[in-house]
Amino acid sequence: MLSDIDICRSTPLSHIDAVAEKAGLRAEEYESHGHYKAKVSLKCLERLHEKPAGKFVLVTAITPTPLGEGKTVTTIGLAQGLAKLNQSVFACIRQPSMGPIFGVKGGAAGGGYSQVAPMEELNLHLTGDIHAVTAAHNLASAAIDARIYHEQRNGYEDFERRTQLKALRIDPHQVVWKRVVDHNDRALRMVTVGQNEMGKTINGYERTDGFDISAASELMAILALASDLKDLRQRIGKIVIGYSFDGNPVTTEDLQVAGAMTVSMKEAIKPTLMQTLEGVPTLIHAGPFANIAHGNSSIIADDIATRLAEYTVTEGGFGSDMGFEKACNIKAKASGKTPDCAVIVATLRGLKANSGQFDLRPGQAIPDSLFAPDRVALVAGFENLKWHINNVNKYGIPAVVAINRFPQDTNEELQQLIELIEALPNDVEVSISEGFVKGGEGTKELAEKVIKQCEKTSLFEPLYQAQDALMTKITSVVTKGYGAGSFMLSYKAQMQLKQLNEQGFENLSVCFAKTPLSITTNSSIKGAPSGFEVMIRELKLCAGAGFVYALCDNVMTMPGLPDKPAFMSLDIDEHGHIIGLS
Amino acid sequence: MLSDIDICRSTPLSHIDAVAEKAGLRAEEYESHGHYKAKVSLKCLERLHEKPAGKFVLVTAITPTPLGEGKTVTTIGLAQGLAKLNQSVFACIRQPSMGPIFGVKGGAAGGGYSQVAPMEELNLHLTGDIHAVTAAHNLASAAIDARIYHEQRNGYEDFERRTQLKALRIDPHQVVWKRVVDHNDRALRMVTVGQNEMGKTINGYERTDGFDISAASELMAILALASDLKDLRQRIGKIVIGYSFDGNPVTTEDLQVAGAMTVSMKEAIKPTLMQTLEGVPTLIHAGPFANIAHGNSSIIADDIATRLAEYTVTEGGFGSDMGFEKACNIKAKASGKTPDCAVIVATLRGLKANSGQFDLRPGQAIPDSLFAPDRVALVAGFENLKWHINNVNKYGIPAVVAINRFPQDTNEELQQLIELIEALPNDVEVSISEGFVKGGEGTKELAEKVIKQCEKTSLFEPLYQAQDALMTKITSVVTKGYGAGSFMLSYKAQMQLKQLNEQGFENLSVCFAKTPLSITTNSSIKGAPSGFEVMIRELKLCAGAGFVYALCDNVMTMPGLPDKPAFMSLDIDEHGHIIGLS
Repeated sequence: MLSDIDICRSTPLSHIDAVAEKAGLRAEEYESHGHYKAKVSLKCLERLHEKPAGKFVLVTAITPTPLGEGKTVTTIGLAQGLAKLNQSVFACIRQPSMGPIFGVKGGAAGGGYSQVAPMEELNLHLTGDIHAVTAAHNLASAAIDARIYHEQRNGYEDFERRTQLKALRIDPHQVVWKRVVDHNDRALRMVTVGQNEMGKTINGYERTDGFDISAASELMAILALASDLKDLRQRIGKIVIGYSFDGNPVTTEDLQVAGAMTVSMKEAIKPTLMQTLEGVPTLIHAGPFANIAHGNSSIIADDIATRLAEYTVTEGGFGSDMGFEKACNIKAKASGKTPDCAVIVATLRGLKANSGQFDLRPGQAIPDSLFAPDRVALVAGFENLKWHINNVNKYGIPAVVAINRFPQDTNEELQQLIELIEALPNDVEVSISEGFVKGGEGTKELAEKVIKQCEKTSLFEPLYQAQDALMTKITSVVTKGYGAGSFMLSYKAQMQLKQLNEQGFENLSVCFAKTPLSITTNSSIKGAPSGFEVMIRELKLCAGAGFVYALCDNVMTMPGLPDKPAFMSLDIDEHGHIIGLS
Repeated sequence: MLSDIDICRSTPLSHIDAVAEKAGLRAEEYESHGHYKAKVSLKCLERLHEKPAGKFVLVTAITPTPLGEGKTVTTIGLAQGLAKLNQSVFACIRQPSMGPIFGVKGGAAGGGYSQVAPMEELNLHLTGDIHAVTAAHNLASAAIDARIYHEQRNGYEDFERRTQLKALRIDPHQVVWKRVVDHNDRALRMVTVGQNEMGKTINGYERTDGFDISAASELMAILALASDLKDLRQRIGKIVIGYSFDGNPVTTEDLQVAGAMTVSMKEAIKPTLMQTLEGVPTLIHAGPFANIAHGNSSIIADDIATRLAEYTVTEGGFGSDMGFEKACNIKAKASGKTPDCAVIVATLRGLKANSGQFDLRPGQAIPDSLFAPDRVALVAGFENLKWHINNVNKYGIPAVVAINRFPQDTNEELQQLIELIEALPNDVEVSISEGFVKGGEGTKELAEKVIKQCEKTSLFEPLYQAQDALMTKITSVVTKGYGAGSFMLSYKAQMQLKQLNEQGFENLSVCFAKTPLSITTNSSIKGAPSGFEVMIRELKLCAGAGFVYALCDNVMTMPGLPDKPAFMSLDIDEHGHIIGLS
């Protein structure tokens, strides 16, 4: 079989004008960026706002191996399968971050014959939205340090007289807005800024700071959760960047930088239209990771897609304890749109890995032994799939398991898995998904089962309500969501919770940051554990996004590069074509 | 008169397809990005490479006030004036950095009726080239720290066994590749990276680092100086990022990151086509500052423009001691294309400021007194203009002085200035330029004089030759270029010079980084000083760009935000339109 990039290059694509027309967009509702990308204007929602929304399908997965189980392949494959059944359909996915592309994982366009195309344009820069988020984020950072510097230089009174601005008296040791970069850059996790050569103070004052990856920026969450430009502007203005010496929150609005940040993100609010290899219109918009952010593409893209098509297929990152949980408890709360059906991607290799009998480490190749038939490991690992099916049903959502088939998988072992699933009492269907090798032809059965499940009346129920106390919300996710026995807040997190409650932030949602490689917060615990303890080390206010981050255990919001990063194989050939991208 | 953004919004623009067609580009030679921007493919050069190049006009200026004297207004105005005279014409300018836009200076699209439009698209993100430069630059930074971290963690031998890669043994204290960000962020000038919480070493090892503004990145210079994608790839691979413990240079090629950096800049190598308010095709490409970089737009853009049009108007940043000097000694050396005529932008206010009788400070308003007629100040400041005319003629280039007229300027004082210029023995013409208020109608006389000067045979002579020793090149720029009496190398710079010579980098050009507000390295010395001393504190190798940076005095490669930054007035209005951008 050809490589992903070779399949993509050898597939004839339609001009984006044809894709847009087929999708039901009018010429004045988008602007093409080259032949295969377009920015979709939010104006189309004015025309469409009374049109009833189509069905909304959310793709999730079992607890994955470090390489993922093919969620995007299945999302794109399923959308192509629905199109083969003559359904009008959109796919909505996140914009890939360049961190993983240059680091370990490679691109995030799907793969094989189920890709968003051209994959190199999706994976690199696209229409610049992540860069706009990064620029707006770091503008606020520069604004914070400049303000503290100018206020402190000759004292607050002098500053106020000089500028006619009120001094904000920001405490440099209580700045909570870090800087961001869209790379895996371990060395930037913890830095000291504002350093000076001996005896000089021209670079400001020293303080400890750090960089997160852009996918973890609150602005990325805001982009994904905003309903329109006005909402974006309002959310940006609510961001709390730190606290004054009096302990009062200081916002981007106080810094008078929220307007400029919005200006920087004015084009980023428009989803990018592309196509799958079989011409299914696809919206790419926002890129929050699901381990260290809320892990779902934008509400605006869903809104456009569901009004234009009978079916919209989207995905939440990692397993159903991760992006799916946040789709239900954070995104659905903001959008009012709930999934009609959830697709759980499972693989034989991923389930066997969940038996705990194999030694898998991030950044290392999957051992061949994982592909050999092994009923014991499969049955043991099946507990993990059962957990995720139960989890999806818990929210009142009908499920379909998509078994993403690998070339090495035997029919016999696949059949064993199907039987295990069919024996469950749950509201679940199952289908083998061969989108990678066969495109939409390989997912028609999956598409049929999804259509069937979508016909059922939704009984959606989130884990908690907005008016619940923050502590109740945390308890709900940890115990009802993860099935943990208990949780512990660090002393720091306890103080932060107290402060959040005092300052009136108790009705925000909670966004958990934890490893995606286990249902627990310990990446080495596979399968379907229960009764474990969750350790919450820090709470972080994201008042603009509308949630409080709960950082668990040792999860890090800036990844690192491995010793042999993916970028080493990337280059251009003599014709100027990219090589080494997958 | 309307504000710049209101003039821009009320002017009907052509679709970029019409601009491209008028410019002589074929449909397959560009890709539109929205209605008013297009990326031009380098393929067009294959078709055009035998066409003779048109005339090449370089706009420069007197020593400016901190707000600039209207060089871009004159560049765009002149291009429009040439079009009014039925000449085929292109303008080529740099992409504005977001640092100054959000900081002090505002946008860089020209102004009044001589603007590149839409100005907000030019000033914000454009087609993402600066972001691509930033991303590629910081990828190398992440690669450096990751490599040192992984090599040192368990020792070089373990690293080599684990990865099958040769250990590079980079000395963390000899990494010369800083990180970059496209903001004015004073606090990032000097930072410590790789810090760890007590007792842990998960973030790497500590070292002092710093951030430059992206406009000062060697990659930005490479983008501006490369002739094609292949040349870009080769130049990127030559970048020296630091030295091993043995003192040997380590390159991006050694890190195996040069290919990925090129991939990240693959689209950035295509110039962006836009239009002026009067429909003159304009190429925007690369954005090196002229004080801390080489200050000229790209060779590729010039190459395309001069083959498509009879006249190409471009500009070198700041006064003729800055961008113009580098256009002649760095850019022309790389391109082989030399200016047929130089336009020197002067203003009455700028010349009076050069008398040294006024107190002007960066970030503060220009005092009204500078606009009042003042023959004494004008005559004193005229020495500065004389210096720049002599400087341009020194390179064998005929000059035209464009007096950029401000509304407050009196006819009488303008006439005084014209008489002073006409009395000079130089090869110089003079014309009042009213592009700001009148567009191309206000620059027709200027355009006529430029045409006249372009008819002369070029006698171009750079200040130094490639084979000259580095010390000779430095001496040439300082004494012949600036007219300094002497210069001093710091001990550090002397050691660096010795190393550069030993390592075979002696045939590179020299790129001076110094204040643009004086011909000297002391920004408070106005007019036409001579016999001064230049202090060179540091030399920095840019082997990919092909030059050695000479950092003078206290010049900084990362600007800071003022106490009342420009971003405070930026916002979106209720219709989603940008307000406060100028």
